[in-house]
Amino acid sequence: MSALKQSPLAPAGGFPDLPVVDGVRFATGAVGVKYTGRDDVMLAELCAGTAIAGVFTRSSTRSAAVLDCQAKIGGDARDGAAILVNSGNANAFTGERGQMSVQALGRAVAAVCGVPQQRVFTASTGVIGEPLPHDRILAHLDALQRDLSPAALEPAARAIMTTDTFAKGAWARCRLGGADVVISGFAKGSGMIAPDMATMLSYVFTDAKIAQPVLQAMLDRAVVSTFNSITVDSDTSTSDTLIVCATGKAGNGEIRSEDDSDAQTFFAALHSVLLDLAQQVVRDGEGASKFIEVQVSGAVSHQDARKVALSIANSPLVKTAAAGEDPNWGRVVMAVGKSGAQADRDRLSIWFGDLLVAENGWVSPDYREADGQAYMKRDELVVRVDLGLGEAGATVWTCDLTHGYIEINADYRS
Amino acid sequence: MSALKQSPLAPAGGFPDLPVVDGVRFATGAVGVKYTGRDDVMLAELCAGTAIAGVFTRSSTRSAAVLDCQAKIGGDARDGAAILVNSGNANAFTGERGQMSVQALGRAVAAVCGVPQQRVFTASTGVIGEPLPHDRILAHLDALQRDLSPAALEPAARAIMTTDTFAKGAWARCRLGGADVVISGFAKGSGMIAPDMATMLSYVFTDAKIAQPVLQAMLDRAVVSTFNSITVDSDTSTSDTLIVCATGKAGNGEIRSEDDSDAQTFFAALHSVLLDLAQQVVRDGEGASKFIEVQVSGAVSHQDARKVALSIANSPLVKTAAAGEDPNWGRVVMAVGKSGAQADRDRLSIWFGDLLVAENGWVSPDYREADGQAYMKRDELVVRVDLGLGEAGATVWTCDLTHGYIEINADYRS
Repeated sequence: MSALKQSPLAPAGGFPDLPVVDGVRFATGAVGVKYTGRDDVMLAELCAGTAIAGVFTRSSTRSAAVLDCQAKIGGDARDGAAILVNSGNANAFTGERGQMSVQALGRAVAAVCGVPQQRVFTASTGVIGEPLPHDRILAHLDALQRDLSPAALEPAARAIMTTDTFAKGAWARCRLGGADVVISGFAKGSGMIAPDMATMLSYVFTDAKIAQPVLQAMLDRAVVSTFNSITVDSDTSTSDTLIVCATGKAGNGEIRSEDDSDAQTFFAALHSVLLDLAQQVVRDGEGASKFIEVQVSGAVSHQDARKVALSIANSPLVKTAAAGEDPNWGRVVMAVGKSGAQADRDRLSIWFGDLLVAENGWVSPDYREADGQAYMKRDELVVRVDLGLGEAGATVWTCDLTHGYIEINADYRS
Repeated sequence: MSALKQSPLAPAGGFPDLPVVDGVRFATGAVGVKYTGRDDVMLAELCAGTAIAGVFTRSSTRSAAVLDCQAKIGGDARDGAAILVNSGNANAFTGERGQMSVQALGRAVAAVCGVPQQRVFTASTGVIGEPLPHDRILAHLDALQRDLSPAALEPAARAIMTTDTFAKGAWARCRLGGADVVISGFAKGSGMIAPDMATMLSYVFTDAKIAQPVLQAMLDRAVVSTFNSITVDSDTSTSDTLIVCATGKAGNGEIRSEDDSDAQTFFAALHSVLLDLAQQVVRDGEGASKFIEVQVSGAVSHQDARKVALSIANSPLVKTAAAGEDPNWGRVVMAVGKSGAQADRDRLSIWFGDLLVAENGWVSPDYREADGQAYMKRDELVVRVDLGLGEAGATVWTCDLTHGYIEINADYRS
């Protein structure tokens, strides 16, 4: 894995210095599930009272671990909890044996950490369809438990990587009712989702005190404009998992409703962390050489705006044009047309950055191709479309489609 | 254009010897719309009494020519008719000027061929967003009319090509009520649709006598399992056009209902021509090195079966795996899961050709990776999925996603 060259879109400055979150401890180990010479298992231990919320892939062929986590979310927060993640093997489409692995790991982590099995959340990312050698993980659990440390956030972020070319972390601080609250999270990509090796996993931790149903509602809302607004290749993993844990150690008065003023402050901070992580996943999209923001306005509904934005962001022709630094606005028109959203060719306006390219059903009289070409040479592009029909808008993020994507995905497993 | 290397999937034997269709004459010319040194305009003249049916792109940003054709389909068949197609410029997203070009061409063709403008069907394929130099075409119309010949089917097929690497033709014969009937057709691709240069156009001619509403109903039905069951890159052109013309010169008793026994015979022949042409478009998909048939069975509904088949056929990860000759059935599982169709991971079976790869939620015990690898080296692949839930099925055709696709589309216009 270390052979992969770091994406040119990696954030300058490298992995951020994530603040420690009171009530969470991490440990990592080199178990040898598949990789050698690197950590490939991460254990997180959460104190009693931690509220846990999650969102998961909607795939109808989701993995045993995802099904297990989904059944556990929303459980009693009085006990402690634990998260166990391995990289190198997805334990997906492995039949009954896969379910048995999840049960075996859950049981063992519960025993080692002294928490109910109902509070153990596992995830696996890597190759599909191969049996998970869970015995190798079981043999390391005691050592992992002994190594637990509040500071091991970066090693944890690295241990869950697969085809990622850089580790992804983000954090925020806010004040809730006089208490300082911190949020630290990490994620791995690196296709939007490649089922082989690039399931999206993200774990976010905060010391805020917040009731589980409120945390879940906030996460459901925040994910729409963050992780559910990114796409690398339109493919959806069988294992996507995003879990947010609130330990309640910050000393703020518990947030019990989304209407609390503290709730808005916390939501904004949580949203910023999720957006940062989601955008880093796109920046590390397989083969990505351009980071593309697609803004749609003037739609008759938010749903239509998202349809148009995702149609543009998923279009192989738009994405290859970006890779070729070609200001090919005709392909944007095509993607609007095929989206299924209400659109009128003659009311459409298209911008590349601040350059008005097309309007009134034709190229703008002021647009010069040389300006478009110069703009497309940037690493970060904004494609903006106004449908001219209504008030609704949406923004999504994607990357270009390059020879690198073909190389990674045509040659991966064989 | 001639610089493009012929697809390795081109039919052996080259362009077929299309039978002449009584009642149709063709002419082509080198007008210089954009290309030089090749024919780029095709005129077809149809005798009085020709029934004309058509299906068109569903894009909401469709071109002026498509809108014009759609408004004319179903008109009075007593008069003659004409079809004019140019390559090199799509006259799409060219605002009012584009509509004026369509009107100018329609008026002039009507005058030259002595038919009502209401019976002139035009199409343009090529670059989007640039004004069509229709004066160059107008200046050649008299010469084209003088050159009209029943035998010029192959030159017509070649004149409408853009990024196609081979000309696409297909034909069939059948007997209707004692009369010999012929069907000859041609098409151009060559992405499923690239709005720049690869709009799908197809024109099919028959001497059968058939009432226009019946012809239209048959075409609507036949297109579902032919042209609407192919995909190269999931992108949809602004100009896709498929027109079928029935001159009525064969002397068969007019087909007046889809329930006629003659209707079934004719439908089968028409369907075979459309399927052949549609598959040739896929075989010439941009950069294609594998022709892939995706068969889905066991779905709860035909709609679900199509969803799954298209999800597999459009998945960049499935398509890059095919390009890499990787028997990566995990990606097929992923594509089933993301399709939105009803599916149960543990009832799914997957075959590559006759090789049973996965069943009961896991890899088949008899499957050997070496067999899968050997199978994937073929030029023509069959991916078969049984959902194990119901009786409905669907088949679609696609090609792989290769470096060639990126080269063609990342570098085209610039």
